[in-house]
Amino acid sequence: MADQVAGAIDIGGTHIRVSLVSDRGEVLTAATLPTLTGAGSAQVCVRRMHGQLVRQCAQRGLGLADLRGVGIVCAGPIDCRRGEIHNPYTLPGWEAYNIVASLRACTGLLVTLEHDVNGALLGEVFLNSWQGKRVLMISFGTGIGVAVYDRDRSFRAGTTYHPEMGHVVVDACLTNACYCRHGGCFESLWSGSALQARAQALGYASFDDLFARWQAGETAAQGEMERLQRYFRAGVWNLMTIFKPDILVLGGGLMQRYYDFCAGLIRRDLDGLEDFVESYQIFPMALEDGSAVVGASRLVFGDAALTA
Amino acid sequence: MADQVAGAIDIGGTHIRVSLVSDRGEVLTAATLPTLTGAGSAQVCVRRMHGQLVRQCAQRGLGLADLRGVGIVCAGPIDCRRGEIHNPYTLPGWEAYNIVASLRACTGLLVTLEHDVNGALLGEVFLNSWQGKRVLMISFGTGIGVAVYDRDRSFRAGTTYHPEMGHVVVDACLTNACYCRHGGCFESLWSGSALQARAQALGYASFDDLFARWQAGETAAQGEMERLQRYFRAGVWNLMTIFKPDILVLGGGLMQRYYDFCAGLIRRDLDGLEDFVESYQIFPMALEDGSAVVGASRLVFGDAALTA
Repeated sequence: MADQVAGAIDIGGTHIRVSLVSDRGEVLTAATLPTLTGAGSAQVCVRRMHGQLVRQCAQRGLGLADLRGVGIVCAGPIDCRRGEIHNPYTLPGWEAYNIVASLRACTGLLVTLEHDVNGALLGEVFLNSWQGKRVLMISFGTGIGVAVYDRDRSFRAGTTYHPEMGHVVVDACLTNACYCRHGGCFESLWSGSALQARAQALGYASFDDLFARWQAGETAAQGEMERLQRYFRAGVWNLMTIFKPDILVLGGGLMQRYYDFCAGLIRRDLDGLEDFVESYQIFPMALEDGSAVVGASRLVFGDAALTA
Repeated sequence: MADQVAGAIDIGGTHIRVSLVSDRGEVLTAATLPTLTGAGSAQVCVRRMHGQLVRQCAQRGLGLADLRGVGIVCAGPIDCRRGEIHNPYTLPGWEAYNIVASLRACTGLLVTLEHDVNGALLGEVFLNSWQGKRVLMISFGTGIGVAVYDRDRSFRAGTTYHPEMGHVVVDACLTNACYCRHGGCFESLWSGSALQARAQALGYASFDDLFARWQAGETAAQGEMERLQRYFRAGVWNLMTIFKPDILVLGGGLMQRYYDFCAGLIRRDLDGLEDFVESYQIFPMALEDGSAVVGASRLVFGDAALTA
């Protein structure tokens, strides 16, 4: 029997990936569109997504109607139940836009919307055959995205938006500004952009520079790196002690360079605390760029319980 | 039709409450036994619990076999699935004791074991008719106990022990000792005993004394109370932003005096952050002493999904 095929779309702040993905997780076709922002841009982008799906289907000798459906993952805040995007931060002009209804109207297909971080985790779960496990993913990029998969479903809290778990506070005495209004939150200290800004404010060329000087034993870098490690351990501990996953996945741009360092920090920090965290394994993301698209396709093939 | 009746037992570090509770949540009978610790003490206590159940049944004109079952709630760590207590901290001598098997053997009844904090929350949910809601309970006593009820089940993480969510770190730069090995955890700063010890170390008679002097405007108390409020807001924020409950319940000895103050702090802190916490209400525990016993009875009447 031929594989079933889904449309899979990953909408980020700078570009939109459109792919066809088989039910075995194979990415069959791929294209990237620029993300437009401002009034009317969502409508333009949806027309282009539709065009891409038609073109990619033709490449594979398929018609649109041969697709099982379309899964979309998008940077939040989004309202998955209503199918609406409410993200003035990275998608201005798309506010209250019902992308599910729009794409359904032009394609005639079943369309499903999910947060990008949940989508990426669904992709990782599928690609690694982690169904039946509890998996915590922390993604260190522009922000800190956190998702939890618990055996057969994405962890959801509240009724609308994905919980912003990257904003757990690790130093209540800090008063640095974050849009969560809580100084000392994990994202404001350990997102890739926060580390970069902090290192530069201290006179280093970059976080890489600070890190290299610390490793080379430069005295001036010691205090700062000691403090940053405390924050990192606390942020991860706060999530690990609440969710006690079987598997911790570390992803995001920062982990392409610092995975080994960070995984080592966590292992040393949690060693001997089995009453609190039980047993766990740590892995880097398998497909840093592609997990979200594979995850988007899994929304269509229905291995995750989508309702809260 | 006559009410159904369950045995309900709440095992704490100093005493054990034994009651009969109706399926309408009415506490029909009650007695308190001292908690014995050390070798052999668990066996002695189980014999006494059995005796109490027999006596209380007789008071109500019942035989043991008329009970629908027995629910036990106990201070963790406990292994609910195996029915074992592993709590060397407050129940030394009960380690690896299978209380479910022992009490089942002498009573012939179905026996169920649950963490006390989950039990208290189940009791609150039942007494307030909060079935179908998401409820977060934070109990400020000797430690900080946290439980989450999500529509029809107690939140569980890991495979064995209840997640020790009171140990989220709120100040990663502190190096005070806690058995979780993480300085600056919420419990080490805001449990009733931690506040007391901290106030006394600063020369106050008690936390009540520190609080009263702060309210009276004494300059020396301002910095310390400002810092403690930061910790409190961060600890509650860390849990609220992850679980986004419909209802937050504040319990434990500390809240008998400070509920209004603490609820006010939380409301001011979260005002305007609906993207993060959505809408919620705050309540004090309805039955500070009795919720755990009512919750224990609900284990028997089966309104909570018990498996993880």
